Amino acid sequence: MNITCMLFEGLTVLDIIGPYEVLHRVPGANVQFVAKQAGPITTENDALVLQAQAGFADVQSTDVLVVPGGFATRQLEKDDETLDWIRAIDKTTTWTTSVCTGSMVLAAAGLLVGKEATTHWASLERLRDYGAIPTSQRVVEQGKVITAAGVSSGIDMGLVLASRLSDDDHAQAIQLGIEYDPQPPFDAGALEKAPARAVEILAEQYAGREI
Amino acid sequence: MNITCMLFEGLTVLDIIGPYEVLHRVPGANVQFVAKQAGPITTENDALVLQAQAGFADVQSTDVLVVPGGFATRQLEKDDETLDWIRAIDKTTTWTTSVCTGSMVLAAAGLLVGKEATTHWASLERLRDYGAIPTSQRVVEQGKVITAAGVSSGIDMGLVLASRLSDDDHAQAIQLGIEYDPQPPFDAGALEKAPARAVEILAEQYAGREI
Repeated sequence: MNITCMLFEGLTVLDIIGPYEVLHRVPGANVQFVAKQAGPITTENDALVLQAQAGFADVQSTDVLVVPGGFATRQLEKDDETLDWIRAIDKTTTWTTSVCTGSMVLAAAGLLVGKEATTHWASLERLRDYGAIPTSQRVVEQGKVITAAGVSSGIDMGLVLASRLSDDDHAQAIQLGIEYDPQPPFDAGALEKAPARAVEILAEQYAGREI
Repeated sequence: MNITCMLFEGLTVLDIIGPYEVLHRVPGANVQFVAKQAGPITTENDALVLQAQAGFADVQSTDVLVVPGGFATRQLEKDDETLDWIRAIDKTTTWTTSVCTGSMVLAAAGLLVGKEATTHWASLERLRDYGAIPTSQRVVEQGKVITAAGVSSGIDMGLVLASRLSDDDHAQAIQLGIEYDPQPPFDAGALEKAPARAVEILAEQYAGREI
């Protein structure tokens, strides 16, 4: 079973590492990291470089596609090379998935028309621009398409997908293996729960950036 | 503020990316990835390569050290070059931290003697071999040392540390930014919660491996 993790310059690295850490543990999984060209990919704040093992031209089909997000997806929404590759690959997949604003790229590729979908909360309403139906859930499954909410939600999505690719027993074994028994020190991970001051700080950081 | 993420061949990548995704968002954070030598580092199942920007010899001090885990830490527990570097760096840190079996490396370096600490549940009792006090908590803070449980716990540890490095407001803003509102599809992330079949599957996978 081939699982293809898409990379691009400026991605948010946890978006892809969350699902990756789950999915590479699924029995029979063969994971590859793919970008426009094989080679180094610099992530969001320039501190981390990952290697893409293959370029788009090398990968014409896959069983599972995972598209991560990040501020850089705003550009990808207009990038024909990326959108064309995603459309072509999607024709071959059993599952087409995204995390965070990776959903905006699937949407821009026309893959979410008429479908319920989620993405990072700050981008959620923009899904309408592409004919998708914004849905405030952490993981949204519609046929073979699974979209996940912001950044860390890719771990939850990965476990849902792992159960589809194998079964609940194996997905639970993976959850135990990565000791995913979350205990965040705060309950501020959703807009309706976060204290006003935290929302204000984040709004200042987002100001002037296209999200 | 310099935050140093240690890399080594065979690490479990989510161990380091979890804290990284939180900590690089702390105001004033300057994150670097460091290994024995600068250059490519292959993670646990060979599918992913990360770049270390600096080698041990290039980094003589840091404010925060983060040591991830993985099966490969068994070798690191006996690796004098790594242990010597960790001991030297620890003398300069404000916070020395670990995720998963990264705690075993801190322990082998002698940094957990007489301290409560945690690690991946499958290695927890082995902490005693190094004079540490195994503690079944997700994040354990003892003076300037913070240890975290298996793999995914590094996100929780990162948020605790972010609140110490800045304040609760900023840590909560980071939690909202990464939409860390976990909703795993199963409740199997701890040994006492996981169904028997999941434990059995994982035990088969661990059989014959040194953990």
